[in-house]
Amino acid sequence: MDQYSAELDTVFAALADPTRRAVIGRLGRGPAGISELAEPFDMALPSFMKHVRLLESSGLIRTAKQGRVRTCTLERQRLAAVDGWLAEQRAIWEARTDRLEAFLLDEQERAETNERHREP
Amino acid sequence: MDQYSAELDTVFAALADPTRRAVIGRLGRGPAGISELAEPFDMALPSFMKHVRLLESSGLIRTAKQGRVRTCTLERQRLAAVDGWLAEQRAIWEARTDRLEAFLLDEQERAETNERHREP
Repeated sequence: MDQYSAELDTVFAALADPTRRAVIGRLGRGPAGISELAEPFDMALPSFMKHVRLLESSGLIRTAKQGRVRTCTLERQRLAAVDGWLAEQRAIWEARTDRLEAFLLDEQERAETNERHREP
Repeated sequence: MDQYSAELDTVFAALADPTRRAVIGRLGRGPAGISELAEPFDMALPSFMKHVRLLESSGLIRTAKQGRVRTCTLERQRLAAVDGWLAEQRAIWEARTDRLEAFLLDEQERAETNERHREP
């Protein structure tokens, strides 16, 4: 498995949870400390920290400790991996649509030619 | 947890695997039977079927049996949920960038006003 694929595995797994997606959304508005991030969730701090560590190991956020406060920052470019994968899928669909269109045009032309040959 | 969030959970979890992403990519080129889909993978059929069932339960593909052949089809609109979530994140970042710009313009204006006041 190449590195891009391994990266997608961890990023998609990190995003498969509502708490982690909400943290990503909050950090989109700017860096925040752990206690501020944890505040909206009805969750014990150790459970919340598991989500933070998973986000950090996926590369979607980075954390830095200054004194007693750990600040979390979003790493937007990691989400670009998801954008890239979706763009690949769209390219595949568009190529298919082009092939279907070419096929239908061929069929139409053939039908019209047959039609003309049938005329007296 | 609302339905949209639950949908995102299962879609992101389904995409967190290279075999399942490859199946999505293959089905982007058109529907396929299970044996054709399984062919590129060095995997026992029961293991492959687990991936197919997980994709089906996430709503990313649907399967239909005709006689002995089960055909899989991509459900593109399910991937639109991922697009939608990414678009939400971008909107949050852009709002933040706008706020930062407004703040910097304010600061610049204040600095210029102070500068003028200091002139004789």
